[in-house]
Amino acid sequence: MGRSFRARRRVEFRDTDAAGIVHFSAFFFWMESAEHEFLRSLGLHVIDRGADRGADAGEWSWPRVSASCDYLSAARFGDELDIAVAVAAVGRSSVTYTFSFAVEGRPVARGRVVAVRCLMRPGAGPEATAIPPDIVARLTG
Amino acid sequence: MGRSFRARRRVEFRDTDAAGIVHFSAFFFWMESAEHEFLRSLGLHVIDRGADRGADAGEWSWPRVSASCDYLSAARFGDELDIAVAVAAVGRSSVTYTFSFAVEGRPVARGRVVAVRCLMRPGAGPEATAIPPDIVARLTG
Amino acid sequence: MGRSFRARRRVEFRDTDAAGIVHFSAFFFWMESAEHEFLRSLGLHVIDRGADRGADAGEWSWPRVSASCDYLSAARFGDELDIAVAVAAVGRSSVTYTFSFAVEGRPVARGRVVAVRCLMRPGAGPEATAIPPDIVARLTG
Amino acid sequence: MGRSFRARRRVEFRDTDAAGIVHFSAFFFWMESAEHEFLRSLGLHVIDRGADRGADAGEWSWPRVSASCDYLSAARFGDELDIAVAVAAVGRSSVTYTFSFAVEGRPVARGRVVAVRCLMRPGAGPEATAIPPDIVARLTG
Repeated sequence: MGRSFRARRRVEFRDTDAAGIVHFSAFFFWMESAEHEFLRSLGLHVIDRGADRGADAGEWSWPRVSASCDYLSAARFGDELDIAVAVAAVGRSSVTYTFSFAVEGRPVARGRVVAVRCLMRPGAGPEATAIPPDIVARLTG
Repeated sequence: MGRSFRARRRVEFRDTDAAGIVHFSAFFFWMESAEHEFLRSLGLHVIDRGADRGADAGEWSWPRVSASCDYLSAARFGDELDIAVAVAAVGRSSVTYTFSFAVEGRPVARGRVVAVRCLMRPGAGPEATAIPPDIVARLTG
Repeated sequence: MGRSFRARRRVEFRDTDAAGIVHFSAFFFWMESAEHEFLRSLGLHVIDRGADRGADAGEWSWPRVSASCDYLSAARFGDELDIAVAVAAVGRSSVTYTFSFAVEGRPVARGRVVAVRCLMRPGAGPEATAIPPDIVARLTG
Repeated sequence: MGRSFRARRRVEFRDTDAAGIVHFSAFFFWMESAEHEFLRSLGLHVIDRGADRGADAGEWSWPRVSASCDYLSAARFGDELDIAVAVAAVGRSSVTYTFSFAVEGRPVARGRVVAVRCLMRPGAGPEATAIPPDIVARLTG
């Protein structure tokens, strides 16, 4: 029961491969960037300085614990992609996003990402923490 | 009931991001390259010329219909990755691969890819076709 | 004495590295995409079908024969890049572009690319050919 | 007057584009990775912890101030690349590397990178510093 968002971008040459179509990896980049656009549209930072959110050092960001994509049809260099982002679930420290990609109404791919709110300190591994209530409120809208 | 294979590679700088760890997308590149190394180890071409396999034009390759990855711990620049590839299923036109990534015995990620044998003709979409028996035989060992 | 163009884009996470800044390779992607936006703004195709331009097969595109970049200051995730593209020279088959990158007025990088009009036929190497007069006219404005 | 080094790698699918050949950006990744292999072969770290080299915080790394590449012929998916790295110059804080790429003896590309020894502190820009004498000694061999 969360918010949704729409992004739009054009397929760049860097995103294609020698099969003449978009490389399957590109959708993961696009999911991440659409997620970031979505967070910015809510007035949220993608990365928070630790000091701004109660940590003495480091940064808060959103590493992925899981990412998947199903490919429905081929996209090509120059295509205009419509990307629909939805918040599918918000847990204590995780957000599940779903993504649909289309080119001129033709479904191209469907994806899903689970991102976890983590404190990243230099020299330490990512440490999962509860999502602050103000962020939960914006994500669930 | 398929074959398995082991690959090894070092994390390159291009594969890291500003969170100081490997970008989640890199595992998808590594899965693809490990799959290709595996195919070569079986004496198979990753891409077959159409003319060599009964088509008048185009190329046979293996577009993905699905790819996923679960992230278990962070990998970093310079880490040596051990990648275990296994053939989990072979269908009429598809192969399902599973992948495990570890750094010095520590599990880092687990992935799964479904690739489909397709004829790629210039100007046409990928066309799924049956996997030739000699390729099935090598994949299922 | 050619035309110029301005593009704008935000630094995406995929473009950063573990040093916390934009990876030096990203500027080459951005130059290419700005060049493509520029060509589209002139009403030109980035890739022409051979049949539309007097070849019986293949595609015309613009492989690079040279690319360089000087890095002046660091750009970071989320920065808004201003990219100025200029046509520095047009030869028989080549176009030389120059690029300036800035973030909020601060110079970040300067680049230069020489692209050559080539016919790409399946199974053959890129073949340089004269740039058609209508394209020269638009590039030199 | 510096050392030289040889690296070898295979063109991966991620490095190709819809023109059917290696994307021009890939050579910049390969230069960086060959440089890193070279540094490791000399017993040097690519990144030094600040504390190990006289800084109270941060890391020492080698951001690029300049990178260029000339493209001589096309490389393709699956090609085995021979990469020759040479130290062309060592200055107070910079190292100039040159690179030659070949496939089965055919010249493919020639590149040049100038990297600068910098202290990277969280929240600050890269700060150029003198290359320690032990590193100069290994680079000039």
